[in-house]
Amino acid sequence: MDLTRLPAAWLRDNCRCAQCRDPRNGQKLFQITDLPTDLAVGEVRAGEAAFEVEWLPDGHRSVYGTRWLASADPAEGDGGGDSGDGRTEAGKQLWCAADLDGRLPEAGWEAYLADPAERIRVLESVQRLGFALLRDVPRTERQVLAVAGTFGHVRETNYGTLFDVRVEADPNNLAFTGAAIAPHTDNPYRDPVPTLQLLHCLTNAAVGGDSGLVDGFAAASLLRAEDPAAFEVLTRTLVPFRFDDARTALRADRPLIEVDALGRIREVRFNNRSIGTLRLSREALDSFYRAYRAFGELLLRAELRLDFRLGPGDCLVFDNTRLLHARTAFAESGERHLQGCYADLDGLASTLAVLRRERPLDELAALFDGAGAEQYLGEDVTQAQHMLQAASLAEAAGAAPALVAAALLHDVGHFHGAVTGADLMAGTDNRHSHTGAEWLARWFGPEVTEPVRLHVAAKRYLCAVEPEYFGRLSEASVHTLRVQGGPMSQSEVRAFEAEAFGAEAVRLRRWDEGAKDVRVSAAADFAHYRPLLAGLLR
Amino acid sequence: MDLTRLPAAWLRDNCRCAQCRDPRNGQKLFQITDLPTDLAVGEVRAGEAAFEVEWLPDGHRSVYGTRWLASADPAEGDGGGDSGDGRTEAGKQLWCAADLDGRLPEAGWEAYLADPAERIRVLESVQRLGFALLRDVPRTERQVLAVAGTFGHVRETNYGTLFDVRVEADPNNLAFTGAAIAPHTDNPYRDPVPTLQLLHCLTNAAVGGDSGLVDGFAAASLLRAEDPAAFEVLTRTLVPFRFDDARTALRADRPLIEVDALGRIREVRFNNRSIGTLRLSREALDSFYRAYRAFGELLLRAELRLDFRLGPGDCLVFDNTRLLHARTAFAESGERHLQGCYADLDGLASTLAVLRRERPLDELAALFDGAGAEQYLGEDVTQAQHMLQAASLAEAAGAAPALVAAALLHDVGHFHGAVTGADLMAGTDNRHSHTGAEWLARWFGPEVTEPVRLHVAAKRYLCAVEPEYFGRLSEASVHTLRVQGGPMSQSEVRAFEAEAFGAEAVRLRRWDEGAKDVRVSAAADFAHYRPLLAGLLR
Repeated sequence: MDLTRLPAAWLRDNCRCAQCRDPRNGQKLFQITDLPTDLAVGEVRAGEAAFEVEWLPDGHRSVYGTRWLASADPAEGDGGGDSGDGRTEAGKQLWCAADLDGRLPEAGWEAYLADPAERIRVLESVQRLGFALLRDVPRTERQVLAVAGTFGHVRETNYGTLFDVRVEADPNNLAFTGAAIAPHTDNPYRDPVPTLQLLHCLTNAAVGGDSGLVDGFAAASLLRAEDPAAFEVLTRTLVPFRFDDARTALRADRPLIEVDALGRIREVRFNNRSIGTLRLSREALDSFYRAYRAFGELLLRAELRLDFRLGPGDCLVFDNTRLLHARTAFAESGERHLQGCYADLDGLASTLAVLRRERPLDELAALFDGAGAEQYLGEDVTQAQHMLQAASLAEAAGAAPALVAAALLHDVGHFHGAVTGADLMAGTDNRHSHTGAEWLARWFGPEVTEPVRLHVAAKRYLCAVEPEYFGRLSEASVHTLRVQGGPMSQSEVRAFEAEAFGAEAVRLRRWDEGAKDVRVSAAADFAHYRPLLAGLLR
Repeated sequence: MDLTRLPAAWLRDNCRCAQCRDPRNGQKLFQITDLPTDLAVGEVRAGEAAFEVEWLPDGHRSVYGTRWLASADPAEGDGGGDSGDGRTEAGKQLWCAADLDGRLPEAGWEAYLADPAERIRVLESVQRLGFALLRDVPRTERQVLAVAGTFGHVRETNYGTLFDVRVEADPNNLAFTGAAIAPHTDNPYRDPVPTLQLLHCLTNAAVGGDSGLVDGFAAASLLRAEDPAAFEVLTRTLVPFRFDDARTALRADRPLIEVDALGRIREVRFNNRSIGTLRLSREALDSFYRAYRAFGELLLRAELRLDFRLGPGDCLVFDNTRLLHARTAFAESGERHLQGCYADLDGLASTLAVLRRERPLDELAALFDGAGAEQYLGEDVTQAQHMLQAASLAEAAGAAPALVAAALLHDVGHFHGAVTGADLMAGTDNRHSHTGAEWLARWFGPEVTEPVRLHVAAKRYLCAVEPEYFGRLSEASVHTLRVQGGPMSQSEVRAFEAEAFGAEAVRLRRWDEGAKDVRVSAAADFAHYRPLLAGLLR
């Protein structure tokens, strides 16, 4: 790679040395104006995994990993066509009702709380489809705030931290009557608009009062295809949205369809209830009202609208910058009580990203609790006990964190791949050291995966070079040794000794043999190793 | 006015009848798609103050006030060139340090709390200049939340409801060290970004740690003038801002300079600490970094930067979408402790609008407490007592609210105009009934102002038509009657009787004579009449 062809300011702005970035928090410690104006790449030393650059004229040194350079190489850049922060149409799955095929993205409250994978699924739905439905949420007042707290922060407004949606005697909002409400977004008169809304159903015994959702991004994208002039007008016309009551006088002038700097749909505001008086030329008003009506008609198409009914305990979470919500009319005598609150998408996205970052550890934890708790092939300990014992022996021996991790995870290959541990016992090598190493390589570097990959080879090696080693093998291990190829030949021994992580694999193997002790029950559990593993994640 | 020339959908969308708008909350009760597609203005009846329209084809009737039509007439529209919601450069006063001439927009905390006019001044400064400084705010922990509560709602983030800015042992942010921080906006990695920031100084004994502010709108506007290509690039390039710590992974892709649909500067984000890796073509990166540097250099110009020092008890409130803030380095040993929080501009604007809406009542209340509490010219009661007694008599007589208000306010003209009440006593007519009516006409309609305007004429009228009336005048009133022209002539009497509010003025006048009773001390105070007056404000 010819680093001198890269934009110098960009490359230098991405230096990750301790002078340029605070190692404690990753923040840059320099301003763009601190860089020399005649900045240029000087001498470059190419290593196996990194390039070292000496900068002209100031002599600063930066190291760039080849992996980072490959992924960030601006030659591959497409001018911002990626989905970026995921907030525009580029990061969404647009839908009409039929696409969802009657299946709402939903989860039970208990499962959502208990299982990170379930939380990821729900939050991904909100990000990708614009909504998700939590079922069986406790029907207690203010519970909606606890729901918001699982992924973000409540946005307090003039309506309070939460609002009750039920019939009121002297409503300051149409929501607090029994009237039907056409598809709309909330609070367009606010800026910043609340980007998320939650609606938690406490009671719904009313006749009517069903819910509807429309994907505003899908509708806007249809409008762009069918009536590009109308789309253009709606992105260019600032509409004065207003809300007034005794203590409040809000106003925001925003377009009905907001696009980002690249023209991608980013936000929809649609709410005739709060549109004030537009003061434009007659021609501009004619164009706007024509386009506004076209969009309004499109939003009412039956095929766009997803209908369902919120039952007691249901909590709907939806993107208020994208989805329009509606409800059918209901008799004011029928009891219907929702509690709602607002929150923001950025906090939800952060929670989701952190959950994803933690995902490998959750997946491994589940392995230890699930399949790992079953019997270890032909041994008296479970698979999980065996791996925890191996890790414990590694720790006691003062092994480096990577090798402790390798000991902890060395047999995960038994749970992966088409050929199983049972097949191995039946005479077919499942190559579990290889499948395990490959599976772990998504998250860990060679210092963890290589000892895992070589731990079966290490048994064959030790049986070849230490005549008495064979006698230490368990009955099952003697059996599998045959399937795995028996003791190594002399040429195999030489090849093994040339492996970069051969010695580590041998140490791991000895702990492996010792970790089948039914008398040992109090080895640390998986949670003990989480911080160590977190530090080794790529 | 030819109503058929107005855009029909626009005119109908602004119908204010009870079918079209919920009279309880002012929200529109119809969707734009509910209107007939072939909507047209049918028969129009023009009245003195309003036009009534019968719509084709549905026969709906709408009434439009002439005053509203004149102010909203789209022929006067200029395509959105007004300042709209006040959030873009069009609603701001851009500044460089010299413009402020060393005078910070500031107020004492007690005065700010006590005086609505002072609150209006402070909040207007935040809206117009981008900041204000409150002095002598109690130096207690969490007080910054109370400051935010005076105009809006705190925006909770991953930093909590408030954050402490002081040196920390293991900072997750450069702010929590003693390092200098160049001008920047906060949290560009969040979307919506917090639009307001508050910083409350509890202690500042450090050497260094001074504050700086730069008007980012002024800087962006300078860039547009000096280097339009750079300005354009910064409005078009989405920059990935990021923040990561153990529990957080925020990202927002936004331009450094955001313009609205009409191209007006609306938001500035500038913070090199959190700019991630841009993935663009080499050409785009070259253009961006050139423009970014040009903007960065401009932001460092000494003439743009306002320097000051936050002392204990100072609370700075500033617009985080516009102003960049900075601080000089300080010794980590010196004690410096700020508490900050985020809030939003829309809530502040709402509070300001409500305060302005209440302003007339506050101004009148101040009149009753201030000048009104002084001695009433030549009478034994004060001016305020006199007017409160008159209102009380009107109430007791079952007068309409407008006439009670007229009685309450009939003498405010003594406090306004170049010719004073003292001049009147010295022989020059101050025409206080006319100046009072004119002053009140800013807020009240003729049903209030006309009886006020005519209350002196009513005295001259009554003395002409009721021979015994003269005997009821107080000594001072006999004196002023002469200055005011004495009893009316016959032609003056006829003209008076033709006045639309002549009868009301006569009723008012009788209460006026009776409202100089030193024995009456328990008339209701001004606060009693506030709701009545609020209902009469235009």
